[in-house]
Amino acid sequence: MTIDPKQFRAALGSFATGVTIVTTHSKTGEDIGVTASSFNSVSLDPPLVLWSLAKDSLSLQAFMESGYFTVHILTAAQDALSNLFAKRGENKFANLQISRGRGNTPLLPDCAARFQCHTEFCYEGGDHVIFVGHVEEYDYTSHSPLVFHGGRYAHAVRIEHPAGNLTEEPDSSFSQDFLIYLLGRSHHHLFLHLRRELERFNLSEDGWFVLSLLGVSSDRSIAELHRLLAYTGKDITEALITRLAEQGFVCLHGEFAPHTRLTLTNVGRRVVIELVGAGKAAEDHATRNLTPSEQQLLKQSLRRLIQDTFPESESSVLSSDMPSNDTTDFIQE
Amino acid sequence: MTIDPKQFRAALGSFATGVTIVTTHSKTGEDIGVTASSFNSVSLDPPLVLWSLAKDSLSLQAFMESGYFTVHILTAAQDALSNLFAKRGENKFANLQISRGRGNTPLLPDCAARFQCHTEFCYEGGDHVIFVGHVEEYDYTSHSPLVFHGGRYAHAVRIEHPAGNLTEEPDSSFSQDFLIYLLGRSHHHLFLHLRRELERFNLSEDGWFVLSLLGVSSDRSIAELHRLLAYTGKDITEALITRLAEQGFVCLHGEFAPHTRLTLTNVGRRVVIELVGAGKAAEDHATRNLTPSEQQLLKQSLRRLIQDTFPESESSVLSSDMPSNDTTDFIQE
Repeated sequence: MTIDPKQFRAALGSFATGVTIVTTHSKTGEDIGVTASSFNSVSLDPPLVLWSLAKDSLSLQAFMESGYFTVHILTAAQDALSNLFAKRGENKFANLQISRGRGNTPLLPDCAARFQCHTEFCYEGGDHVIFVGHVEEYDYTSHSPLVFHGGRYAHAVRIEHPAGNLTEEPDSSFSQDFLIYLLGRSHHHLFLHLRRELERFNLSEDGWFVLSLLGVSSDRSIAELHRLLAYTGKDITEALITRLAEQGFVCLHGEFAPHTRLTLTNVGRRVVIELVGAGKAAEDHATRNLTPSEQQLLKQSLRRLIQDTFPESESSVLSSDMPSNDTTDFIQE
Repeated sequence: MTIDPKQFRAALGSFATGVTIVTTHSKTGEDIGVTASSFNSVSLDPPLVLWSLAKDSLSLQAFMESGYFTVHILTAAQDALSNLFAKRGENKFANLQISRGRGNTPLLPDCAARFQCHTEFCYEGGDHVIFVGHVEEYDYTSHSPLVFHGGRYAHAVRIEHPAGNLTEEPDSSFSQDFLIYLLGRSHHHLFLHLRRELERFNLSEDGWFVLSLLGVSSDRSIAELHRLLAYTGKDITEALITRLAEQGFVCLHGEFAPHTRLTLTNVGRRVVIELVGAGKAAEDHATRNLTPSEQQLLKQSLRRLIQDTFPESESSVLSSDMPSNDTTDFIQE
């Protein structure tokens, strides 16, 4: 079989790895660092680890001569650092708060783990040299790791068996695997907190929907609001808008009709800000046991799901009639 | 620094890896296979890979003598296979459909990738031997890989940048990162499909909630239903129950009162089965662009979120008054 380098690389990419930065201090006094996914553990006693470096790497000589290196295992938050050290170029350490380890190697902060090694063996490995290090010092945290797979970054997320969950809930078997139920229930749970706040302002759920849409873009027509709420199965009624206007939250610029504009008042804006804050607090509380990766993935999957289920009428409305860039006046992330 | 083996192993565990099974055919005619996470790529030209095996492994001699091995990179669905080959014991291949590769090595089916190698080098590696193989044949698929991290299995899930999503939606900046909004919107989108079905049966949303709760346990008191729906902010009214009874979906065994039992009729049961089917179809459609891992993680995170936000009143009710094991009459997974 002839090996096509591109295909072979793709095949190797099906093995997921963490991402490391390996650093050393050269005999000529330079700090050197390269990104490597070729790290792995070798031996517990003696404590040995390995990684390999391309023979045509500009850093090879420094690593061969130094006799020391430190392997930094990167966290899910360090993809930019990985990119920085994957490039050729000087001054990679310029803006980093480094400390010094064995053999004067530069140590990077905030990693998942660090292994300070002296070079025990350098082995022949085709177009690479395999470095086997004897670990002299190490430290580690429980941060979620950066993962490299199929040529892209990913997160490692633990899969649990659902059997252990929701045991206190009588209708557990129904809810465990029914997505509409899980979505509805989690939405209702989070919304309960917000509902208490709505009561403080004498706001109905429908009233809140209208205010929140105006919170994003504070001037909309009745027809626009109607279309934006169509997916909830709710109607924009004259009674609803009249009540919001009487409460001083909105201003209706004319008779109640499709093309009449509705704007948010300053009082209404303050209410929205307060309710968004309460919603964010409820969210923080609800997701306290999810890792940052899990939270990010949850939102990512929900966004995909929303995108993939746009009601036909609405998506055509959105892509044709609607401005695609609304200014956000106050909601900053 | 003295190295504590347990701590050192934990530190090494912060590096995520794929999981492989390495097989060989011994000189004495036996098929041998071991689970290893110590695999990594070494060289593109020549094509070399490596892995390491404990010197006290019963399989060491076979691998040293055979001169051939095949590395199988496992998919997210192969955790049971990983466990099987991680144990000592014979007959690991007994129930597997194997084929034969270079050096007569047994080849396992359905893997993410397979590398058939002849042994190029055996290097000293402390309490392990490092095998470097020259790849003679390989094949691969795009299946999602099994990941090992912190002593447990995980999935690798790609993180996307939210900027690219929901671009057609005018209130995108608001929705991108607000979990209550994302949950509500995705629930409403999925529910839209179900709503059409509800209309066919002249069922309100509240009516559907009652029927679905009876679908899980077909005999409940009014008080029980009331408590189970409390989190939705909805009430069980006499009008609602009377209507469901008139439609022939439920049977109320007495006056409308907290302790009166409500049961599902055969007609009601058929309606629930049909609606659950419609809900599942809507779910399949909505999640068609999520990988199985992403779907599993989405539900896992929602279950955790629900568990962590049980309204206080409800959770105390559930843990004290309610039976914890309801029989599921018809919803099979």
